[in-house]
Amino acid sequence: MNAPDLPSLAGLAIGAADIDAAASRLAGVAHRTPVHTSRQADERAGGRVFFKCENFQRMGAFKFRGAYNALAQFSAAQRERGAIAFSSGNHAQAIALAARLLGMPSVIVMPTDSPAAKLAATREYQRGQRGSEVVLYDRYQEDREAIGRRLAEQRGMTLIPPFDHPHVMAGQGTAAAELIDEVGPLDKLLVCLGGGGLLSGCAVAAHVRAPGIEVIGVEPEAGNDVQQSLAAGRIVKIDTPRTIADGAQTQAAGALTFAVIQRLVRRVVTVSDAQLVSTMRFFAERMKMVVEPTGCLAAAALLEGVVEARGQRVGVIVSGGNVDLPRYAELIGAAAAA
Amino acid sequence: MNAPDLPSLAGLAIGAADIDAAASRLAGVAHRTPVHTSRQADERAGGRVFFKCENFQRMGAFKFRGAYNALAQFSAAQRERGAIAFSSGNHAQAIALAARLLGMPSVIVMPTDSPAAKLAATREYQRGQRGSEVVLYDRYQEDREAIGRRLAEQRGMTLIPPFDHPHVMAGQGTAAAELIDEVGPLDKLLVCLGGGGLLSGCAVAAHVRAPGIEVIGVEPEAGNDVQQSLAAGRIVKIDTPRTIADGAQTQAAGALTFAVIQRLVRRVVTVSDAQLVSTMRFFAERMKMVVEPTGCLAAAALLEGVVEARGQRVGVIVSGGNVDLPRYAELIGAAAAA
Repeated sequence: MNAPDLPSLAGLAIGAADIDAAASRLAGVAHRTPVHTSRQADERAGGRVFFKCENFQRMGAFKFRGAYNALAQFSAAQRERGAIAFSSGNHAQAIALAARLLGMPSVIVMPTDSPAAKLAATREYQRGQRGSEVVLYDRYQEDREAIGRRLAEQRGMTLIPPFDHPHVMAGQGTAAAELIDEVGPLDKLLVCLGGGGLLSGCAVAAHVRAPGIEVIGVEPEAGNDVQQSLAAGRIVKIDTPRTIADGAQTQAAGALTFAVIQRLVRRVVTVSDAQLVSTMRFFAERMKMVVEPTGCLAAAALLEGVVEARGQRVGVIVSGGNVDLPRYAELIGAAAAA
Repeated sequence: MNAPDLPSLAGLAIGAADIDAAASRLAGVAHRTPVHTSRQADERAGGRVFFKCENFQRMGAFKFRGAYNALAQFSAAQRERGAIAFSSGNHAQAIALAARLLGMPSVIVMPTDSPAAKLAATREYQRGQRGSEVVLYDRYQEDREAIGRRLAEQRGMTLIPPFDHPHVMAGQGTAAAELIDEVGPLDKLLVCLGGGGLLSGCAVAAHVRAPGIEVIGVEPEAGNDVQQSLAAGRIVKIDTPRTIADGAQTQAAGALTFAVIQRLVRRVVTVSDAQLVSTMRFFAERMKMVVEPTGCLAAAALLEGVVEARGQRVGVIVSGGNVDLPRYAELIGAAAAA
């Protein structure tokens, strides 16, 4: 497991043991999501493709893994006060659900213009949990980080960031660990990339299990901050990108996630929104799965020919399936008519 | 396994051994489809619900099981000439794929106005298979059964009907067998019902594995021929029903399937098209699965409160996921906007 040509994990925020410990905490709590295959996907890629279906994870995305792994490590005093998160997306629901399961309060800071379905889902997870609430803010007037920090301080709650946290990263890495433990060694692993929590955790898990594996991050074309950062050798911050991949609209990777990516990720590629829509259609039509735009990033790179994998065994993380139905219908319907 | 209160299987077209033999033939060929669960579904039903996901089966529906089980039992002479089927739906694709896998020709008789996607999918399965073709007929002028029989006679091919055949019925029954073998005994099993191939096979498999289980068939409201037949004590034939459940637009059950249903199925209930659409949305939004209207029949009866199951363990067969994307988008999008 420590072949001389393997990159060292020394100095990184997480190591192999952190992912194993996260897997133990998540056992019986998170779904061990299924791995699906498709003859058509294999034909398109010219190899053998294994899709790790985190759209079937609890609350519909991998984010539950990291959130639960973080909250499960709270001290008794931290549990008493609870957790706080700022997010309009899957991280919000993940924290709300993990807090509920662990019997602690949660406060989620969300923009006033969040989709009604996401607000409702978050509140549903908080239902009956004393001290839990959604705090709304005006995204054009207020700074969510400042609000989150102020609330955390006032209420003594622990703020859990969406990706740049060792417990979050280790939790997300269990997705790749389960995949490789189930299907065996892989030549390549493609991972959706926003802030880098999923990619960094999966990269560590994959390198331990499949020495020499090529781990590739996939960003939206309009938001290639990590690709730029790798080229620059430092974290580059961009404007909020315009893309349908709303889970990857991050402006910059985190310090902890970027250090792992620099060390373990061979390259970062990008896909267009049109390629994401085409992949959403492929998943619906051929694999009967609902996948959100962000969840299609890794698959799109393979199925649309951005990454070549002829004759190889390739793992693809399908990161989530949370998309409003009217929006989903519009995207797959419009593309179908085109 | 032969408790005195168990209905006898004597005289029926299939028995327990036929389903076990089918399972052996299908091992490593058909997908052992996953069983999904959902907290929301459990809450709605007030029990524990296990969804057997045949939408993830090869070619997207349970029909592959019966088709392959039938073709795999062909004699050498039959294999040489191949199989013929008349169907515009999942049975067509199932026969085409099973024939290809077994290296024999297939002829599929389809109406000229079949959806382009289904025509294309069937032809894709036949690609490169000598002697295979799609024969089109005018559904308003010609009789598909007569065409099928004539072609079968002329070419010496074996006609495989979509449901009223022991090998087809036994193959379909492996879905319920896998479900109960995986999750344990159930109080109720809900099964989508068109011609009765799936229901009859599953009823036999379920009664052998879970004595006393209540097996319920679910038909579209507009096409309740089997419900009428059970009341009349004989097979009732109805006009082709108007329903979005295109896989259950059968006019009458078969002689073999009805005999099993009369003996082993406690009751048949119906659901409306609106309830099917609501259930399609539930599957997409909550369980991230694409399910065709017909595939929602059994689930709709439970989730829409037609069948009560408080405190019970309930199996639900999700029969397929083949629906044209524009149509699917229209159904889930329109319902979402309503």
